[in-house]
Amino acid sequence: MRPETLCWHDDCLRLIDQTKLPEKLVYLDCRTAEDVRGAIERLSVRGAPAIGVAAGFGIVVAALESKATTLSGLVADLDKAADYLASSRPTAVNLFWAIDRMRKVWRGSEVPDNPKALLEKLLALAKTIHEEDKVLCEAIGRYGAELLPDPAVCVTHCNAGALATGGQGTALSVFYSAAAAGKKVKVYVDETRPLLQGARLTAWELQQAGVEVIVQCDNAAGSLFQSERIDAVVTGADRIAGNGDVANKIGTYPLAVLANHHGVPFYIAAPYSTFDLKLAGGREIPIEERNRDEVACGFGRNTIPDGVAVRNPAFDITPAALISAIITDKGVLRAPYAESIAAAALHKA
Amino acid sequence: MRPETLCWHDDCLRLIDQTKLPEKLVYLDCRTAEDVRGAIERLSVRGAPAIGVAAGFGIVVAALESKATTLSGLVADLDKAADYLASSRPTAVNLFWAIDRMRKVWRGSEVPDNPKALLEKLLALAKTIHEEDKVLCEAIGRYGAELLPDPAVCVTHCNAGALATGGQGTALSVFYSAAAAGKKVKVYVDETRPLLQGARLTAWELQQAGVEVIVQCDNAAGSLFQSERIDAVVTGADRIAGNGDVANKIGTYPLAVLANHHGVPFYIAAPYSTFDLKLAGGREIPIEERNRDEVACGFGRNTIPDGVAVRNPAFDITPAALISAIITDKGVLRAPYAESIAAAALHKA
Repeated sequence: MRPETLCWHDDCLRLIDQTKLPEKLVYLDCRTAEDVRGAIERLSVRGAPAIGVAAGFGIVVAALESKATTLSGLVADLDKAADYLASSRPTAVNLFWAIDRMRKVWRGSEVPDNPKALLEKLLALAKTIHEEDKVLCEAIGRYGAELLPDPAVCVTHCNAGALATGGQGTALSVFYSAAAAGKKVKVYVDETRPLLQGARLTAWELQQAGVEVIVQCDNAAGSLFQSERIDAVVTGADRIAGNGDVANKIGTYPLAVLANHHGVPFYIAAPYSTFDLKLAGGREIPIEERNRDEVACGFGRNTIPDGVAVRNPAFDITPAALISAIITDKGVLRAPYAESIAAAALHKA
Repeated sequence: MRPETLCWHDDCLRLIDQTKLPEKLVYLDCRTAEDVRGAIERLSVRGAPAIGVAAGFGIVVAALESKATTLSGLVADLDKAADYLASSRPTAVNLFWAIDRMRKVWRGSEVPDNPKALLEKLLALAKTIHEEDKVLCEAIGRYGAELLPDPAVCVTHCNAGALATGGQGTALSVFYSAAAAGKKVKVYVDETRPLLQGARLTAWELQQAGVEVIVQCDNAAGSLFQSERIDAVVTGADRIAGNGDVANKIGTYPLAVLANHHGVPFYIAAPYSTFDLKLAGGREIPIEERNRDEVACGFGRNTIPDGVAVRNPAFDITPAALISAIITDKGVLRAPYAESIAAAALHKA
């Protein structure tokens, strides 16, 4: 049984501190908005859907933390907390999506008339977002598993698994569902520099689940395509524009170029909260540039000479033209994406 | 003034222990064939041309180490040492090329008639191989620099610099020569997992030489091509088959695919000792698989769960079709490579 990535426990947001995996399984109890924001920024919790769930509970934590004695005081504190949490990371749209959804509770048309009722409604919605995410993950897995042959040799990048969501993952959910349906699945995962989410997190959770996993350096994917028949590449997404361009962990785009060069299907797996229909294309997605030390001394040893500059974008953009299909909880979307994404959006309700 | 990568000093092979860079500049004195083989295997000295030079001096070290009192005894010891040194690494052909050249001294048509004369001839040839490498590097730089515009924004991978040769490098020699000719050169270098030769070595030596250098994770090259105009990719080579297929550090092939996808020239820079005309194509080049720990705990911390498999090929093959030109000491070779390489080989003499 895998431990839960995050949950509401004892009036706080309890989450696995993913920076400690795979060496230690440590839980963090977040009792303040600052705790939650810090956990997101530091990547103790990461993965677009999980960030959304964490932000939902982060609003509840902020409400509990508030010293306001009036409804208007609480609302003012919640406004502040929402902006504060939203400033943690710029790329994953699920963060803003979850916060906007929570905000409707205190800024919408049916605001409760006292702080206690407001708090209860916030907690109920945060739990709903979490529960929905589990259901979305299962639907993604179900749709995606049908795309894989048996046996299937797949490649993934970073971690789009249970550790990245409130459920069983997005990309990894496809593998879990295929394995549960009796298919033999072998997964190569890029270690995913600089923070090694593939090596540390994806390898860990696939191993726990009994799915065969092999880790390689990011730069070894090319020779893998040359030396072994690969059936599919499946990754998650942090934000998807209305035309199907995808922002995901740095390294996704070169993997998509390689897959296309070798005629291997390249799939994105993501819930509908990852789509940002306000954006016409990938160029409009803001890309987070993270700090030099993640690359230069991520493991306690200085691997780049002092004074040498480092380029450390956390994400890249994969153009829709390189994507064979986007596996969502509403089914498998194919090109032309502007149409299939718009059609799927109508099912939101 | 940059420190010399390797030299003959005080009757031993003195070399920079590159595993300690960039934190410490430490020299190793190799006084036995075992020292030399260990330095090659452990990557204290690495880079195809430098391995060739080190192996030449390694034979001299073995001759000095020999306790044989007769010529035939020394010859037998040298045969053993040659096989022993040749078993250090399988991919770089310069290793075998240098050893075969040295072997002709004791197995050729004009073998000296006493141990002392044989030793002198061995040392002279090892020094010649070293001196030749300096000249080759300069020629490569001269030819390559003409291919770069001014200003030039370039990408390289791993370390094909002064630290990889007996001279000023192969790929980096192109940058050094262009800069010396007054061109403004900016170089992005992949950190080059697992052993980070790009981050540790290329960044170090370009910084020492005053050439602008920026380090990125290997998986960030894709987004670089998307975000900035790149004039050229230049890398070294560990072995080049007769048809122009190139074995080089793992990650070279995906970089070549990306460069082609973006219409950026992809150049290989290598001396003639890197060509292996016995091999018809890249599939015949043996690829070294290195140990799991290089990937799993290269930073002194376990980054992959125990029991999870690791794929760690040290090299990949870039097909000739992706290579815009091969910059050699004999000039710039272009497709069709089978012809241009064969023609260049005739100039060897």
